[in-house]
Amino acid sequence: MTEPEFAGSNPVWMGTTARREGAEWVLRGHKWFASSADGAAFAICMAVTSPEAANVYRRASMILVPTDTPGFTLLGNASVMGERGGDWASHGEVSYQDARVPAANLLGVEGAGFVLAQERLGPGRIHHGMRWIGVCERAFDILCRHAATRELAPGKPLGSKQIVQQGIAESRAEIHAARLMVLHAAWRIEKEGAEAAREEISLIKVTVARTMQKVLDRAIQGLGALGMTDDTPLAWWYAHERAARIYDGADEVHLEAVARRILRGYGMSTR
Amino acid sequence: MTEPEFAGSNPVWMGTTARREGAEWVLRGHKWFASSADGAAFAICMAVTSPEAANVYRRASMILVPTDTPGFTLLGNASVMGERGGDWASHGEVSYQDARVPAANLLGVEGAGFVLAQERLGPGRIHHGMRWIGVCERAFDILCRHAATRELAPGKPLGSKQIVQQGIAESRAEIHAARLMVLHAAWRIEKEGAEAAREEISLIKVTVARTMQKVLDRAIQGLGALGMTDDTPLAWWYAHERAARIYDGADEVHLEAVARRILRGYGMSTR
Amino acid sequence: MTEPEFAGSNPVWMGTTARREGAEWVLRGHKWFASSADGAAFAICMAVTSPEAANVYRRASMILVPTDTPGFTLLGNASVMGERGGDWASHGEVSYQDARVPAANLLGVEGAGFVLAQERLGPGRIHHGMRWIGVCERAFDILCRHAATRELAPGKPLGSKQIVQQGIAESRAEIHAARLMVLHAAWRIEKEGAEAAREEISLIKVTVARTMQKVLDRAIQGLGALGMTDDTPLAWWYAHERAARIYDGADEVHLEAVARRILRGYGMSTR
Amino acid sequence: MTEPEFAGSNPVWMGTTARREGAEWVLRGHKWFASSADGAAFAICMAVTSPEAANVYRRASMILVPTDTPGFTLLGNASVMGERGGDWASHGEVSYQDARVPAANLLGVEGAGFVLAQERLGPGRIHHGMRWIGVCERAFDILCRHAATRELAPGKPLGSKQIVQQGIAESRAEIHAARLMVLHAAWRIEKEGAEAAREEISLIKVTVARTMQKVLDRAIQGLGALGMTDDTPLAWWYAHERAARIYDGADEVHLEAVARRILRGYGMSTR
Repeated sequence: MTEPEFAGSNPVWMGTTARREGAEWVLRGHKWFASSADGAAFAICMAVTSPEAANVYRRASMILVPTDTPGFTLLGNASVMGERGGDWASHGEVSYQDARVPAANLLGVEGAGFVLAQERLGPGRIHHGMRWIGVCERAFDILCRHAATRELAPGKPLGSKQIVQQGIAESRAEIHAARLMVLHAAWRIEKEGAEAAREEISLIKVTVARTMQKVLDRAIQGLGALGMTDDTPLAWWYAHERAARIYDGADEVHLEAVARRILRGYGMSTR
Repeated sequence: MTEPEFAGSNPVWMGTTARREGAEWVLRGHKWFASSADGAAFAICMAVTSPEAANVYRRASMILVPTDTPGFTLLGNASVMGERGGDWASHGEVSYQDARVPAANLLGVEGAGFVLAQERLGPGRIHHGMRWIGVCERAFDILCRHAATRELAPGKPLGSKQIVQQGIAESRAEIHAARLMVLHAAWRIEKEGAEAAREEISLIKVTVARTMQKVLDRAIQGLGALGMTDDTPLAWWYAHERAARIYDGADEVHLEAVARRILRGYGMSTR
Repeated sequence: MTEPEFAGSNPVWMGTTARREGAEWVLRGHKWFASSADGAAFAICMAVTSPEAANVYRRASMILVPTDTPGFTLLGNASVMGERGGDWASHGEVSYQDARVPAANLLGVEGAGFVLAQERLGPGRIHHGMRWIGVCERAFDILCRHAATRELAPGKPLGSKQIVQQGIAESRAEIHAARLMVLHAAWRIEKEGAEAAREEISLIKVTVARTMQKVLDRAIQGLGALGMTDDTPLAWWYAHERAARIYDGADEVHLEAVARRILRGYGMSTR
Repeated sequence: MTEPEFAGSNPVWMGTTARREGAEWVLRGHKWFASSADGAAFAICMAVTSPEAANVYRRASMILVPTDTPGFTLLGNASVMGERGGDWASHGEVSYQDARVPAANLLGVEGAGFVLAQERLGPGRIHHGMRWIGVCERAFDILCRHAATRELAPGKPLGSKQIVQQGIAESRAEIHAARLMVLHAAWRIEKEGAEAAREEISLIKVTVARTMQKVLDRAIQGLGALGMTDDTPLAWWYAHERAARIYDGADEVHLEAVARRILRGYGMSTR
């Protein structure tokens, strides 16, 4: 098996366990930031099932847990950037206290947790890239519309200021580059599969998220106080899409994975 | 009179007017982002009183308006980064519909509005610099505490990662620089007065606000998902202190004012 | 005629003139930074021929001037980043003192100077983008090879440092994005012509030049003192390719042109 | 003894040795980038004298070696950014082939090499900071003078462009901050000694060098092609002062040292 992509998902460090008792799995543990747990009918619990497996990436499994299972508790939703959210748009804190589910609730085979996560996360990340391009384009449109129409003085629109122009053109260049990277990665996934496009997927994960942050920042600055208000979606994106550089692998983790892959190609051992 | 510092506060462009009728001022206009209007006993209204004055910076005056004056209406508070706020912590939309106040409510002399605003805003800006240094230090402390104690794997704290270390040291350097600039400006204000320290005040306005944004961004990235939650003050600051680069003169406006001042020293006419 | 792309090439501001005398053009003027003038058999002189033309972009013409024409003098080559250069690799200072050439030496029609320049410069700029991608790739390769093999301590290569890894992966992302932009622009030029791809060409002019500067800077930093020496081509590129953000339209000029084009699409008048 | 500041100067990794034979030291090794070796009367050779010392930072010593000592050879000067230099302004490659010098040529006591280096380098670094501030100020002055006088069109100086103004004001802010940091560090060295100011010295080493690079880059961009020529000192500084982020401890090394120091204050073990 190839090197795992994310140091963050360290199986040695995983606290939730599932032990087999007869025809059941007994789960014990505590999960934080379980997105969309609120209102869900079932959870997919990643738990250590084979703590002694030689390959550390074969120690965990995914198990389906109906949320009405005794021992499963949604302790509450985390408040994120001022919003506790609810239902799909939420990040729950979940507890498993000897929650019992049928053995058949195992997804795939025992120890396949990491493989399954990778298979879903890998291509899943490109969807974020696509969505973020959409956010970028909308923010760009709001900025341009404002710059073209908001007058600083009679007959002198905001967009006549050179510094606003630089930000608009730089945003255009960055969004253009980000879109081409997403299209290219999608093309490669289609042609050669997600595994072959791993590097490209990591690069768009980092690049598009950073581009979005820059474009949103420029748009807010361009709109001034209006950009801080909820009269446009800019403020919400600025606050909540900040998470884009963190979830599904932080920037630093993806960049490290890409670099290690490249350096192995130059003969460097990265263990 | 020296060139006004902020192109944004263009008196030609000011819509609210106050005309004298007998012993009263009659105010008409609409104000947006009137901070702390909610719950206030009176407003200080900046209104054009001498539209024909040759010196455009002598056209506006400041007038006290009790908030129970007929014709004064607080239309509501703007929702900012998801929070509508209230009382002191609010940004109201205010309407003056032929609101009448005694002539004696004029602050200073007629046409002194800009001069008064400058006298208050100038030194007032340094207080933001001081407060932002406080935000920086607290964010820095939260990041360091987390980096020193959060383990990525047993015995391997987050702070052992070189990229986290770079961010911590760069933050230290930037906060250190920002603090020295604030102390220096305060010293100059004390020694020579606010007018002499105008350039320094503009530079800290821009520098400390940008430093704060960078430090908060690094702290959130360092804390990961935890940084996005309201379990620390980082998320609130990240969202709400974004306004620091906008209020009391946007970055671009301060930088332009400083550059024009410098270039005049090189003989360039800046009209 | 559409708005000229570059404010820099202001025909009102052009000092060299060519006046018609019988069957000859008589040229007078002084040119600086005439690249490859040294060793050239002829110059293409851009000169004002119709100073009164209503359309200012129809005032100048291109005229062939053999370098052995009396009145044509190559005053010398400018020393650039420590090198005076020579022959093709040079930037000459040229003087025209009543240099006379046959009327037939006019390229195209009178007043076509700007149109011809645009036709050559437009697509010409993409060739720089292609060449700079080559510089980026070679610099990247030098950095990776060094990082993979240079040991900080026995068994600990430079490339094991996380900050080096971040720079390598960020460079990979940026070069990848830049290459896709160049390929896309080339595809568009082929499909729709250079005029249709004007925005894309400006964006790669800026983006690839900046990417190259960043990649070279990281490579030099990664190689340390070795990166400063002429034992690798990095130092030469770092010094001499700095011009990439200046020649054929400075960053600021291209960005301004792109933004104005975009803002016109939003109804803003940009004269 | 406190943790050594620079991982780069790893004594385990030092190749040059000096072994005692009677009343002499016999040196063997090869040194690269020995600044100012060309024309020097003597070298100060850092060599491993006690390879078995438990404290690795007590293994090396400094020994005076007259350059006419048999076995001492200056192999040549490295070509740096296109210049091989000479005399004081040079970086030599030096060879010690059983070069013998009297035992009395040892500086201080055996094993004191690192301590001596630190004592000289520490305060020595602040002198670079001071010198770089001078470079910054001169570059800033060249940029402002050019911006104020160079006309883009009649009556429209370069300095009227907002993007030029932003760069001028940002440079002013950064140079101002850098100078205050240098003054503060100097004051602390004077009051409490170089050891107490170690963190401040590292921070100015990084901050001033980076500020200088940014200011020089903006100045060259502002002057355009002229900035690339040797008609101003900007080009030389741009090329040669690039080394400032490398010599006397690279940025990354200083930042890492500062961060580790800070994190130890938060209880993190950094070995």
